[in-house]
Amino acid sequence: MKHKPLILVSNDDGITSRGIRLLVETMSEIGEVVVVAPNSPQSGMGHAITIGNTLRLDSNAIFDKIVAYECSGTPADCIKLAKHYVLKNRVPDLVVSGINHGSNSSISVLYSGTMSAAIEAALEGLPAIGFSLCDHNPNAEIEHCKSIIKQIALQVLKTPLAKGTALNVNIPAYSNQSIKGIKICRQAIARWQENFEERFDPNGRRYFWMAGDFENSDKGLDTDESALAENYVSVVPCTYDLTAHHVITQLNSEWSIL
Amino acid sequence: MKHKPLILVSNDDGITSRGIRLLVETMSEIGEVVVVAPNSPQSGMGHAITIGNTLRLDSNAIFDKIVAYECSGTPADCIKLAKHYVLKNRVPDLVVSGINHGSNSSISVLYSGTMSAAIEAALEGLPAIGFSLCDHNPNAEIEHCKSIIKQIALQVLKTPLAKGTALNVNIPAYSNQSIKGIKICRQAIARWQENFEERFDPNGRRYFWMAGDFENSDKGLDTDESALAENYVSVVPCTYDLTAHHVITQLNSEWSIL
Repeated sequence: MKHKPLILVSNDDGITSRGIRLLVETMSEIGEVVVVAPNSPQSGMGHAITIGNTLRLDSNAIFDKIVAYECSGTPADCIKLAKHYVLKNRVPDLVVSGINHGSNSSISVLYSGTMSAAIEAALEGLPAIGFSLCDHNPNAEIEHCKSIIKQIALQVLKTPLAKGTALNVNIPAYSNQSIKGIKICRQAIARWQENFEERFDPNGRRYFWMAGDFENSDKGLDTDESALAENYVSVVPCTYDLTAHHVITQLNSEWSIL
Repeated sequence: MKHKPLILVSNDDGITSRGIRLLVETMSEIGEVVVVAPNSPQSGMGHAITIGNTLRLDSNAIFDKIVAYECSGTPADCIKLAKHYVLKNRVPDLVVSGINHGSNSSISVLYSGTMSAAIEAALEGLPAIGFSLCDHNPNAEIEHCKSIIKQIALQVLKTPLAKGTALNVNIPAYSNQSIKGIKICRQAIARWQENFEERFDPNGRRYFWMAGDFENSDKGLDTDESALAENYVSVVPCTYDLTAHHVITQLNSEWSIL
């Protein structure tokens, strides 16, 4: 790499979170960093975008000597504004999102704002990585992520990702056992078993809190869940092509209405 | 089919939209209908869910003789609440979402609240279809969708979908040319070329409106865009497995950090 790489950083926990601070710090050791991140937490926003409403974008001096903007929209909005307004004709060499406070493995990728920023970048043809720490505690030990995210970012800068691919990287929570390594995985086919807790407000009107348990029935040893359970970092290459290609032939042969 | 099928209906334009009214009317001719839909428009919400906030769910008498609930959350929230609270132990034979006012073909599937309801149902192991009309005009002619959605719903009830599959059905806007038929397609690989219009509010503070043009560079004749351009109804089977399986081998062979 001859020039200093340009790295765009976003996240879904908001520009003031500890995760993005560590990510910005680490990426600054590799290249020139520009930050465009939500001005408030956007967890669970999936691939939402702001339509039928206005967007705010304001510069923010939270990171020393780094160009940063906070945006009123979703993570996907941040990437769109970064590409088409903040960076204009400059094309980032890498887009990174995170570090998310909480796992985005398995089907959580669908609900994840962190990964929607990465997938939006992949849609724009940019190499992209979403980083998540498998610990929801906002005060969790996070420093152990630093060497891992640096290694993976440098690898992606060295060996280009297939066009349209975004990596979903999940890092085990800190423990006294050292992380065993990095594994390329597929997304485990699991589900959330929701549980809605019914409560009543002071006016007697009903409301709900969504809660739930993660249920992994996928026994494959090549999944992200399996890697994380073994204390490996999981890396799942993700696409934005949702087509179930294997089902096309089946429908073409079985449907009488075609 | 021996019993009267149970059909769960949702959407993203909200419970009062014209699209869901036609969908409820049509599904009532096929089976027993239960509606759980957002109480306000949720367009562009992607696969967002409500976490860290409460949800409201109230019964609604908008549809004559049909059990219906309006929910304060996203389309994905509606499906979760329907499955785990409204229907409890009853398992729907089919989940339908829409009819969306506006196309959800190609990559719009990622941003679509209509399709996130269908994909959430697929995650729950339920057969699911999202219907969209390729016309954003809220007053657009919509009656021509009726026979198409009925045909497709009956076909899915007759020939079970592969587990975990949700169909993304897009119906051409009404014109004086009759629709040529139904085609099974793959998602076109296209993108939105965004354009952010900068404005200033009465206090002199900057804000943006997102706009953009759809750019389809995918010349394949097997895509949804191609089918719609030829005046066919497009049907794309969708999965919630985002893994780019073809990239796994590449990363395993090229990465030195593994």
